Amino acid sequence: MHGSWKGRDVISILDFSRDDLDALYYLADKYLEKIQNATPLRTLEGFVISLAFFEPSTRTRMSFETAAKRLGAGVIGFTAAAGTSLEKGESYADTIRMLDGYSDLIVLRHKYEGAARFAAEIAKHPVVNGGDGKQHHPTQAFIDLYTIRRLKERLEGLNIGVLGDLRYGRAANSFILGTALYRTNTLYLISPPQLRMRDETRIILEDLGVRFYETESLEDVVSDLDVLYVTRIQKERFPDLSEYEKVKGSYRVTRRLLETRAKPDLIVMHPLPRVDEISYDVDDTRYQAYFKQAYYGVPVRMAVLSLVLGKEG
Amino acid sequence: MHGSWKGRDVISILDFSRDDLDALYYLADKYLEKIQNATPLRTLEGFVISLAFFEPSTRTRMSFETAAKRLGAGVIGFTAAAGTSLEKGESYADTIRMLDGYSDLIVLRHKYEGAARFAAEIAKHPVVNGGDGKQHHPTQAFIDLYTIRRLKERLEGLNIGVLGDLRYGRAANSFILGTALYRTNTLYLISPPQLRMRDETRIILEDLGVRFYETESLEDVVSDLDVLYVTRIQKERFPDLSEYEKVKGSYRVTRRLLETRAKPDLIVMHPLPRVDEISYDVDDTRYQAYFKQAYYGVPVRMAVLSLVLGKEG
Amino acid sequence: MHGSWKGRDVISILDFSRDDLDALYYLADKYLEKIQNATPLRTLEGFVISLAFFEPSTRTRMSFETAAKRLGAGVIGFTAAAGTSLEKGESYADTIRMLDGYSDLIVLRHKYEGAARFAAEIAKHPVVNGGDGKQHHPTQAFIDLYTIRRLKERLEGLNIGVLGDLRYGRAANSFILGTALYRTNTLYLISPPQLRMRDETRIILEDLGVRFYETESLEDVVSDLDVLYVTRIQKERFPDLSEYEKVKGSYRVTRRLLETRAKPDLIVMHPLPRVDEISYDVDDTRYQAYFKQAYYGVPVRMAVLSLVLGKEG
Repeated sequence: MHGSWKGRDVISILDFSRDDLDALYYLADKYLEKIQNATPLRTLEGFVISLAFFEPSTRTRMSFETAAKRLGAGVIGFTAAAGTSLEKGESYADTIRMLDGYSDLIVLRHKYEGAARFAAEIAKHPVVNGGDGKQHHPTQAFIDLYTIRRLKERLEGLNIGVLGDLRYGRAANSFILGTALYRTNTLYLISPPQLRMRDETRIILEDLGVRFYETESLEDVVSDLDVLYVTRIQKERFPDLSEYEKVKGSYRVTRRLLETRAKPDLIVMHPLPRVDEISYDVDDTRYQAYFKQAYYGVPVRMAVLSLVLGKEG
Repeated sequence: MHGSWKGRDVISILDFSRDDLDALYYLADKYLEKIQNATPLRTLEGFVISLAFFEPSTRTRMSFETAAKRLGAGVIGFTAAAGTSLEKGESYADTIRMLDGYSDLIVLRHKYEGAARFAAEIAKHPVVNGGDGKQHHPTQAFIDLYTIRRLKERLEGLNIGVLGDLRYGRAANSFILGTALYRTNTLYLISPPQLRMRDETRIILEDLGVRFYETESLEDVVSDLDVLYVTRIQKERFPDLSEYEKVKGSYRVTRRLLETRAKPDLIVMHPLPRVDEISYDVDDTRYQAYFKQAYYGVPVRMAVLSLVLGKEG
Repeated sequence: MHGSWKGRDVISILDFSRDDLDALYYLADKYLEKIQNATPLRTLEGFVISLAFFEPSTRTRMSFETAAKRLGAGVIGFTAAAGTSLEKGESYADTIRMLDGYSDLIVLRHKYEGAARFAAEIAKHPVVNGGDGKQHHPTQAFIDLYTIRRLKERLEGLNIGVLGDLRYGRAANSFILGTALYRTNTLYLISPPQLRMRDETRIILEDLGVRFYETESLEDVVSDLDVLYVTRIQKERFPDLSEYEKVKGSYRVTRRLLETRAKPDLIVMHPLPRVDEISYDVDDTRYQAYFKQAYYGVPVRMAVLSLVLGKEG
């Protein structure tokens, strides 16, 4: 059943089917139980995994590193400091070939779209995209859908709001594409006009026949939602600072908003780090799902690594 | 017997009793033997430990990392570069929650006092303070007392000198508080007036009924001592540079001073790194205990990690 | 048979005999097979290895780290950022003593020649030189000779060209000294006049009775060669930039040059990273041996670590 994962590159959520995700989540459930029982695993003992972060990252890097180590794998790699280049004259292709010579699997983050696909073409070992450019972050989308599946007990027939930067945010983009695998969902895409979903994403949704609404107002739609996926809006996207301040204020998810408007079983998600788009008073409410989402990252990434390396259990 | 350690946060030496330390040192002795016999251990196999160094550190970080790895645990984490902030807009609380979601125990260093206690309140998993602010560095104090116990074969009835910055130095502060657990010791607190022990430490010593003398002169008291604990004096503490130079000179521990004045079985300790407060000609004398102290750091920290995680042996 | 490696420091290729290398390569062959069969090894379980890179390094560091982890060892350490000093007031000797107290073996890189030998004198545990100063990089030389042995099936009677910076390049220097262990080889030392082999290397070759020719022209000698070892020429070595540009052009190894002039079974090696001294169109030809050379680094370094620690198999 898991045969289709072995040896595969994980570049975009679009390359995966619902059956692939079922196999993934079946294994993630098992790993979650092992973590909770503190059962030591040697599934990937003797394997070495490269974490090649050409862009800085703390959260995604540590999540993958935890996943690898919980399976007994060794980890090597590097993380670019903010604002530095790691390549120092050496070509990107040569760096990938080096990592491919040392390790059994490469996890990669890069600021340029297509960097992961290019690495996968060069490398003999599987490549897992840990985020490249503005559109793809497939393991984040796996985690997001897994979180919904665990907390709502289904992935179908949900009203799903996606709030924030839908244009440049790769987590939001990958999440939108991931929900589209489940066609009975309805998407509410909430953003200021300049941060609307990109045309290439829109075309995919239309091709798949996914129902979606685009709106600028959170308040107007929040009462319809079963899931609200919040992402950060970066100040740098706004030429006019007063415009940014206005948007920021109206897109802030507060306890008051949720208690007065939302369904009682709405879950609020966020790929983190959050700045102030969700106020801290939401943390202790039943709506909060973002810390669980981070927690589920480890078992889901464990499942990705072991399936791709063909070593389950 | 070790029951009182399991699941516990390790924030301040003040939270621990002599019985706690006995249990700790019993296990540290066992681990020391295992290291010396190169016996591989799988005590913490399957566990993941976070090393979250919000302040730069090489020595403490590597000591904890060695301890974790000698027990078979996986390690994740980060170390702030000198002068940088790791938090980049994300709240400290959110970072702690992330680490708490990934790992089974968090070791933490932070420049602000109280950071470790605050983290322990948020995290479900145990937190071990690897140094916060100016007063607490409990595992360093455990190591220091263990070193005395191994080299002097007792922790009672000793004349213990503490030299240097007793005001801002967290290693000296924690050491002073640690020795106070053993009431038959006499403390000689040697420092320039502006770097004297803080009032909150003085009050604790007085409450406990510990005998202590404060003095500015090393020469006057050195011949009384069984133990001399040296710490670094930082130039930045002195508005007047010539004042610093004078202090620095008179507080330098040299072979000549020891050979002419000290008891033959005095041990000289230092939490390291040293700059020039102990001259290099002391390194090859019988007085030198600071490299042993660093060496004992690993078995003591192994004991801390395994006791707190409830997995001895 | 491997008795002569146990506990030994690995500082210079000159300290090793052909018998030492035979023992090393016998074990490297076994480890290569284990890697290819994905057989997990616990040879160094319970051991901790320090990687102390006082000079920045990605490639050598990750190669050693992979080797250690494939054997089940724990790894601690640090890597200096470009342009920074790690020593911050603490003496180099104290840093080595700290690492010696924590770990079972120290791998060291340093910009000063002699730094590894000095560390070996201080440390009780074995020290492996990962490159110091301009002359020694012994494990790189082990890997280079191993690559020739695997691809040419012999280490004798070969015409070996060494191209580039023979004066300041430690990889080239160590390789030249390594090939000199096999006296029936002929060396072609190809460099601009200002980057010729240093006198101390020349004297060693003469003492050993090794046949060598020095030349400025690659074109003149390329057709004689069985092996061509290429190294980078750094712009900084040339006071006159136009001089550099001329040299750079004439020393570039291209597919066209190889196809029109070289023996069909010539192998082209490079310690990497390459900049543009070998053109990319060589990558897919039968001449290319540099990616295999990087790949062989892991089993050779596994053999070094396990032999020195006295734990084979």
